[in-house]
Amino acid sequence: MIIVMKSGSPRQEIDLLLTELSGWNVVPELSVGKHKVAIGLIGDTAEIDVRQVQNLSPFIEQVLRIKKPFKRTSLEFRNGEPSEVKVFTPSETITFGQNHPVVVIAGPCSVESEEMIVDTALKVKAAGAKFLRGGAYKPRTSPYAFQGHGESALDWLATAKSVSGLGIITEVMDAAELEIISSVADILQIGARNMQNFSLLKKVGATNKPVFLKRGLSATIEDWLMSAEYILAAGNPNVILCERGIRTFDREYTRNTLDISAIPVLRNLTHLPIAIDPSHATGKSELVTSMALAAIAAGCDSLMVEVHPNPQKALSDGPQSLNFPNFEQFMKEITPLGKFFGRWQEPRYTNSKVTQSQTSLANWKIGVL
Amino acid sequence: MIIVMKSGSPRQEIDLLLTELSGWNVVPELSVGKHKVAIGLIGDTAEIDVRQVQNLSPFIEQVLRIKKPFKRTSLEFRNGEPSEVKVFTPSETITFGQNHPVVVIAGPCSVESEEMIVDTALKVKAAGAKFLRGGAYKPRTSPYAFQGHGESALDWLATAKSVSGLGIITEVMDAAELEIISSVADILQIGARNMQNFSLLKKVGATNKPVFLKRGLSATIEDWLMSAEYILAAGNPNVILCERGIRTFDREYTRNTLDISAIPVLRNLTHLPIAIDPSHATGKSELVTSMALAAIAAGCDSLMVEVHPNPQKALSDGPQSLNFPNFEQFMKEITPLGKFFGRWQEPRYTNSKVTQSQTSLANWKIGVL
Amino acid sequence: MIIVMKSGSPRQEIDLLLTELSGWNVVPELSVGKHKVAIGLIGDTAEIDVRQVQNLSPFIEQVLRIKKPFKRTSLEFRNGEPSEVKVFTPSETITFGQNHPVVVIAGPCSVESEEMIVDTALKVKAAGAKFLRGGAYKPRTSPYAFQGHGESALDWLATAKSVSGLGIITEVMDAAELEIISSVADILQIGARNMQNFSLLKKVGATNKPVFLKRGLSATIEDWLMSAEYILAAGNPNVILCERGIRTFDREYTRNTLDISAIPVLRNLTHLPIAIDPSHATGKSELVTSMALAAIAAGCDSLMVEVHPNPQKALSDGPQSLNFPNFEQFMKEITPLGKFFGRWQEPRYTNSKVTQSQTSLANWKIGVL
Amino acid sequence: MIIVMKSGSPRQEIDLLLTELSGWNVVPELSVGKHKVAIGLIGDTAEIDVRQVQNLSPFIEQVLRIKKPFKRTSLEFRNGEPSEVKVFTPSETITFGQNHPVVVIAGPCSVESEEMIVDTALKVKAAGAKFLRGGAYKPRTSPYAFQGHGESALDWLATAKSVSGLGIITEVMDAAELEIISSVADILQIGARNMQNFSLLKKVGATNKPVFLKRGLSATIEDWLMSAEYILAAGNPNVILCERGIRTFDREYTRNTLDISAIPVLRNLTHLPIAIDPSHATGKSELVTSMALAAIAAGCDSLMVEVHPNPQKALSDGPQSLNFPNFEQFMKEITPLGKFFGRWQEPRYTNSKVTQSQTSLANWKIGVL
Repeated sequence: MIIVMKSGSPRQEIDLLLTELSGWNVVPELSVGKHKVAIGLIGDTAEIDVRQVQNLSPFIEQVLRIKKPFKRTSLEFRNGEPSEVKVFTPSETITFGQNHPVVVIAGPCSVESEEMIVDTALKVKAAGAKFLRGGAYKPRTSPYAFQGHGESALDWLATAKSVSGLGIITEVMDAAELEIISSVADILQIGARNMQNFSLLKKVGATNKPVFLKRGLSATIEDWLMSAEYILAAGNPNVILCERGIRTFDREYTRNTLDISAIPVLRNLTHLPIAIDPSHATGKSELVTSMALAAIAAGCDSLMVEVHPNPQKALSDGPQSLNFPNFEQFMKEITPLGKFFGRWQEPRYTNSKVTQSQTSLANWKIGVL
Repeated sequence: MIIVMKSGSPRQEIDLLLTELSGWNVVPELSVGKHKVAIGLIGDTAEIDVRQVQNLSPFIEQVLRIKKPFKRTSLEFRNGEPSEVKVFTPSETITFGQNHPVVVIAGPCSVESEEMIVDTALKVKAAGAKFLRGGAYKPRTSPYAFQGHGESALDWLATAKSVSGLGIITEVMDAAELEIISSVADILQIGARNMQNFSLLKKVGATNKPVFLKRGLSATIEDWLMSAEYILAAGNPNVILCERGIRTFDREYTRNTLDISAIPVLRNLTHLPIAIDPSHATGKSELVTSMALAAIAAGCDSLMVEVHPNPQKALSDGPQSLNFPNFEQFMKEITPLGKFFGRWQEPRYTNSKVTQSQTSLANWKIGVL
Repeated sequence: MIIVMKSGSPRQEIDLLLTELSGWNVVPELSVGKHKVAIGLIGDTAEIDVRQVQNLSPFIEQVLRIKKPFKRTSLEFRNGEPSEVKVFTPSETITFGQNHPVVVIAGPCSVESEEMIVDTALKVKAAGAKFLRGGAYKPRTSPYAFQGHGESALDWLATAKSVSGLGIITEVMDAAELEIISSVADILQIGARNMQNFSLLKKVGATNKPVFLKRGLSATIEDWLMSAEYILAAGNPNVILCERGIRTFDREYTRNTLDISAIPVLRNLTHLPIAIDPSHATGKSELVTSMALAAIAAGCDSLMVEVHPNPQKALSDGPQSLNFPNFEQFMKEITPLGKFFGRWQEPRYTNSKVTQSQTSLANWKIGVL
Repeated sequence: MIIVMKSGSPRQEIDLLLTELSGWNVVPELSVGKHKVAIGLIGDTAEIDVRQVQNLSPFIEQVLRIKKPFKRTSLEFRNGEPSEVKVFTPSETITFGQNHPVVVIAGPCSVESEEMIVDTALKVKAAGAKFLRGGAYKPRTSPYAFQGHGESALDWLATAKSVSGLGIITEVMDAAELEIISSVADILQIGARNMQNFSLLKKVGATNKPVFLKRGLSATIEDWLMSAEYILAAGNPNVILCERGIRTFDREYTRNTLDISAIPVLRNLTHLPIAIDPSHATGKSELVTSMALAAIAAGCDSLMVEVHPNPQKALSDGPQSLNFPNFEQFMKEITPLGKFFGRWQEPRYTNSKVTQSQTSLANWKIGVL
């Protein structure tokens, strides 16, 4: 149930209302939009009479029931106001959201060595990425395939973060590793294969780290929003939804099928930011740029792209990874479109940043770090 | 098998080669690109020795076998040169192709009356469409649903064509109607449900009309190209491929799933122009604009959009149709992006055209036409 | 709308009712069940008041509206009574239906020569098949693949029919061939790729030949029944539905996915007989027997199986074809299960039949036929 | 790599070979079949020369490489010998396997109360089930849906086990609950949504409990076998594969699509026992019997069926649950078919068992237990 307050409702009145509602066996959650304030009621609201709520205050504009099975993730819950997921990286605070620049996340499928990940971090940073992705714990179809370097990889990610100033995003597969991963990661990724691992969702929902929730291979839009709902219901509102291709009958020329219409569909259903991963969606590096362009045009808030120093020798997902020159070219091709849509961050203090990074790199190389 | 000639090969040499090859029990087809000329050999080329062909002329640069099951539709067949499908409409010659402006096709699912289709034609023309779509014979899931006005609808389309100067595209479901449809239509549409109606493909392949080949609901990229191959093999090279959404597990918020990656995938496989139908792909008018933007960004050559004077009262496909103001708004939103990519035709002589149309309309209304 | 008559309603009363209803701008269709008679009303019944119909006769037990989009194919339309499709073959009359033995149809994908098809006919007949399948006109994905021997193949099928006494089923792809095919075929097959070729459906619906309607690759149960409805609505009630595998994400170990639950689902929705084609569904000859056993256990009324004298050399679909010893073994494995369910025809006069066939064969070989 | 020993190889020779191989940086695993013994080698066998192994003993018949990505789960790994998963229940030892009776598992989706689960246990036992299913921890799409009674439910399952003598199978969603669940459960279920939760697979692989591995909603056969491989690779060979319906485009009349061909496909690829869950596959109680019959005919080794005392009031999955009389009827319908295929256990000592159960029940009711 949502209570929309009239424009200019006094704060005192809203506080009174919150106090009153707290006695009703529901949890009220405040959502402050540009023009209006809305109060979402969580709990068993089936018994509550709409008129009874309406009568609580003359400043109430409207009381609405959310009929969809997803509540906190629904657009109505924030009265149509998109949410912003703010992430504090060493260099700057990055905001994921509909009214913010498109955030580029780049890096390898798995962290293969310290040198490799630091090198990648500096290269993708120089080209304009804001976050470094890289798997320390890897979900692999085969138990005999490389499973990630685990804790060592986390250490190397920490170095890359320190050297580059980039934010770090890495996947959590097991709640047992949540603490150690959280010590390095700025964003926790839940992979497609764990999208309905409800135990894990509850646990990342109990942290305050932003969560990057990838869509399951055959998850419907509703399944996906319900999984996000698990995280929000556990107390963590910082969820970014990432479409990474769905499984269809045609798998000959692409690994998965990018469901580009998920962008406008989600925009109409939820306030959460929307990311696209054109690398996993297609499985082919040569298709990444055109799919990223399409995603920007369709209105995505973030792009996650696989970049590897030497894709031919990658321990995983080589065919879908861009090498450094390809990634630079990729950024050159998508930047004008991002600007065209007014969704691109102009680089600030670039020179000093680079200098700082280069200094960090020099220090790292001579063992000071 | 493809014979690529060296740049600057004399025409006489090429003619000699064609004559020679005609005696080899294969059909040579000439493809003239910007820089080079290529000769495709059709027939049982399995027995032909590549070196033997190579020795036919010192102007031969390379002789290649096409290993894919589709031959004439393959990009190699034209040595990487995109093909151009030229259509002569009353107003102008329109070219579908990778190096040409994006062509917008608009109109209702079915032609419901003369007034309705003429009205629509003038409105979509004014907004920038180059072709009018409209079904005279409709493939409907139910035998009890409206099946189209048939020959009357063709007459009305002819009026709309004459009044507006737009080209006409309409669906052929039955070879028996091919002749009468061809007397009005500038482009023949083969619908998704007939994509593997091989008898029909052969028959439209035997005409010289451009064919708009919609992808089947669960056709793989290869199935689709093989259907195009039927048309080309029958002698008609003027095929435009149209992605209109595929059938997947998620049909709650969209009617089908737009396979946007089909654009770059096809670009790497075939020389044929590529169109996108965001109306059928999504089944929701509110998703059409963002999907059209994505399609332009991904590099499509044409867009087919459903427009109806009054979607609420449409005899078919109302929920996915734009009304006139929506379509005007749609064109305003996609035009800047088309220009951004250098894929938009600047309107020429707009005033005089409109005047002409208005005059035609006036004539039509007073019964002169 | 369905009018269910009370048990024992006099014929005269029913006739009066039919006459009365004929004046109502609807077409009444009589369906005589074991215990009761039902009258289906076809046409625009939306305006008709149920009570008004009820009042027409005291012998009316119930008047019901059919809410499903499919009417004539719905189980309600025959008041729950399964329909029987009777086919007259040279040897005997075969009935497809829920209360009849499972009918086995066998033969090659395409008719490759007279000798091959006659040989196959005799072998599958000896093993217990009642119908010979074989394509004269073949729908092939590639225009360069073998397209069938056409009219010659029809002649050879006629010979095989005469020699073996089996009924003939063969595919119609083009209405132009309907007449010539009908001169030989006892059952017309509509292939999966033409399931929504509505023009063709109307044309086979206008004949009185039984139609074997294969399910489209991604047709829903409802799409499929609507296609059957086209045939029934055109006047031909003799439709057999054949599930032949649907297209899913997993195509590595099977060509398609056999939707076995289609059998009980259809049983609850329609009165039409249900066949299963385990050969196309799996695409692997080694999976055919277990899928046929599953189909019998789930209650199918007919099985269509591909049999070829030499699958390794088949011009099409070799990997899914059984050779003669395999087919004999197949029949030995499924027969006890058919008997277990009381759905197997005991062979009658087998010796004399074989003798007759052998005589025919001898005659055929010495050119008497 | 597999080493197949000649029939009658002396045990001493095999032991010597195992000792020798242990020094090769691989783990040899012995598989004793009816006629022959095979030794599977796990580890990096790529470098090992087949001839070198061949020369180790004159009793070696053949040395083969397993080319499939799944090794321990492959049929070759056991030289074609089906594996047997033995489970010790209070009443008897039950064996799942190709040469054993079909094992029926029955019970509710979730354990709702002690009375309900004890009641169900006695009823399904009386009808012939060998295992009781029931969720204590439930994976639900919505965080607001009933999530299971957790530890209380485990206690109730323990009571039901003690009272009925049935084995218990229940789902593990979180490694943290593995120990407590293992104290009650005889078989651990991994649900469809966790099929690729590789952390969890490794953990159940580290136990010695039999694992019931449900197929993911869009898992290919190969994905599924690779998930089983995780469990076997972690040391637990007791895996039962359960097909429970896959996600396809048609979800109107069934919840999922039962992939019945998975049975023969798996039979040719793996030695593991195969179960079918017709309740989840169809989502409709009225389809369960015919799908169970199909599964038995196709050769499944086990059936898992949802049974609830009052499906209309079930906290989850009511529409697909049988009530007690339906389940009794179900068993009556499938038993003759199980016997027909020689895959049914004749009830032994039924009277005394029932007496024992009734006594236990009496004790339980008067609080002795």
